[in-house]
Amino acid sequence: MNFNSFPFSPPLEGRGEPLNIIKVGGGVVENAASLASLLDQFAAMPGRKVLVHGGGRLATAMAASLGIGSRMVGGRRITDEKMLEVVTMVYGGLVNKNIVAGLQAKGVRAIGLTGADGDVIRSHRRPPKRVRMDDGTEQTVDFGFVGDVDKVDAAMLARLVEGGLVPVVAPLTHDGEGHILNTNADTIAASVACALAEHYEVTLTFCFEKAGVLRDADDDRSVIPSIDEEQAAQLIHDGIISGGMIPKIENALDAIHRGVRQVVITHSDNIDGTKGTTIKGEKVKK
Amino acid sequence: MNFNSFPFSPPLEGRGEPLNIIKVGGGVVENAASLASLLDQFAAMPGRKVLVHGGGRLATAMAASLGIGSRMVGGRRITDEKMLEVVTMVYGGLVNKNIVAGLQAKGVRAIGLTGADGDVIRSHRRPPKRVRMDDGTEQTVDFGFVGDVDKVDAAMLARLVEGGLVPVVAPLTHDGEGHILNTNADTIAASVACALAEHYEVTLTFCFEKAGVLRDADDDRSVIPSIDEEQAAQLIHDGIISGGMIPKIENALDAIHRGVRQVVITHSDNIDGTKGTTIKGEKVKK
Repeated sequence: MNFNSFPFSPPLEGRGEPLNIIKVGGGVVENAASLASLLDQFAAMPGRKVLVHGGGRLATAMAASLGIGSRMVGGRRITDEKMLEVVTMVYGGLVNKNIVAGLQAKGVRAIGLTGADGDVIRSHRRPPKRVRMDDGTEQTVDFGFVGDVDKVDAAMLARLVEGGLVPVVAPLTHDGEGHILNTNADTIAASVACALAEHYEVTLTFCFEKAGVLRDADDDRSVIPSIDEEQAAQLIHDGIISGGMIPKIENALDAIHRGVRQVVITHSDNIDGTKGTTIKGEKVKK
Repeated sequence: MNFNSFPFSPPLEGRGEPLNIIKVGGGVVENAASLASLLDQFAAMPGRKVLVHGGGRLATAMAASLGIGSRMVGGRRITDEKMLEVVTMVYGGLVNKNIVAGLQAKGVRAIGLTGADGDVIRSHRRPPKRVRMDDGTEQTVDFGFVGDVDKVDAAMLARLVEGGLVPVVAPLTHDGEGHILNTNADTIAASVACALAEHYEVTLTFCFEKAGVLRDADDDRSVIPSIDEEQAAQLIHDGIISGGMIPKIENALDAIHRGVRQVVITHSDNIDGTKGTTIKGEKVKK
């Protein structure tokens, strides 16, 4: 066997090379047309890359088909034992494997991963915590089998990437004690980006249904092309950035602080980020 | 980053080293107690190893919960589009990820794979074919989204194994054109074993609910400890090996012809194979 021909062999490269991490949500992957467009764009993207996907809407639909209700608090899913089964099936199986097979057909050597696979992302179960409800009151909420990320094995991911593989990461982690935990896909993307920032010039792109961060939520032409930290604080203060966009921006700024070169928020039709909102910062090493 | 500390680094070994491939069926993985026992035994097994799992019974139950009927012909599932979704979820998600997380908790650096992941197992959709039905008649049956294996990427699997990873393979393959295909787990185990036999001294172990190949199907003490090709033909001729055991034995003999050192058929409580039936042959290189 000629192991030298195998892509995992040295010479090892990748230190400081650009790497793109693309995060797509459930809204993109549940629709055959938008998923096909995403896979085409992602396959066409040159260089080192990682795809992180959600799947929440498909999980909600599958749960409903099984007679299991979905309960969301502050945009986050309450994950009881039955719902954990559903998200493990839908995220780790249905969505992840269809994306991987779709990318293989386009010549991308994708490999699907949850945090449990290769022990790449460890988490702990989130303890019950105080949450601001939609009606403005605060309550203590037990989110159930939801994981907060503790550790990303950047070395493992980097070796897969240097071996020519393209990780496709489902929003599931594990606690090291045998439990899969449901984990927010934005958080996974940001955690993976920060860990890989030790080795690469990382661009982290969040794709969603809008063209970017908008001055006017109803006008896709009102994209704010770039935002720095001060501007973000002002935009949040002025109410221009609100709702579900606030945690996205907070995650983006946190990622910049932890060494990610830039974060892009853009429409899933434009994953190369040329038309969305770029959040940039000086690279600060941890 | 010190890539030298990474397990995928050279020196590359494994040529001619022993490697165990364990195949467990749906009956083992659907039951919490038997699954826990399997994971304990598998974790305790030294050296290089691969786990291949089924999950048919769980898929049948999940399909029923979704109002989807299961139709089997000659022990093989008819896989229509809805059933393909179910098996992709159950095999690739629920079963695979719970096994991987369970093994991680026991210190095994498992990585879950379908054939699509890393392009490790390609297949083609099985054309409609003549099948002997349970009533003895022959009919032309379209099995639907069922894959017959074309190619296993042994180099990729070997590199994962040499990197200290333990592949956990779900019974799903892909056709290279974007489709996941349902594939018999015994066939996957045998195909992986034959491919890896180019690089390792492979022992392939099929675990099931009986103690081994039995002289008397109702008596677990009647295990036939070893069988060669001539004996197998005689036992089939005499009707002692019958029904679902015939394809198992045929697969086993085929694997031996293709370089696998030995095949063991044993109870899932005894995956080290010391009490089951061993099918052995002279190693014949392809």
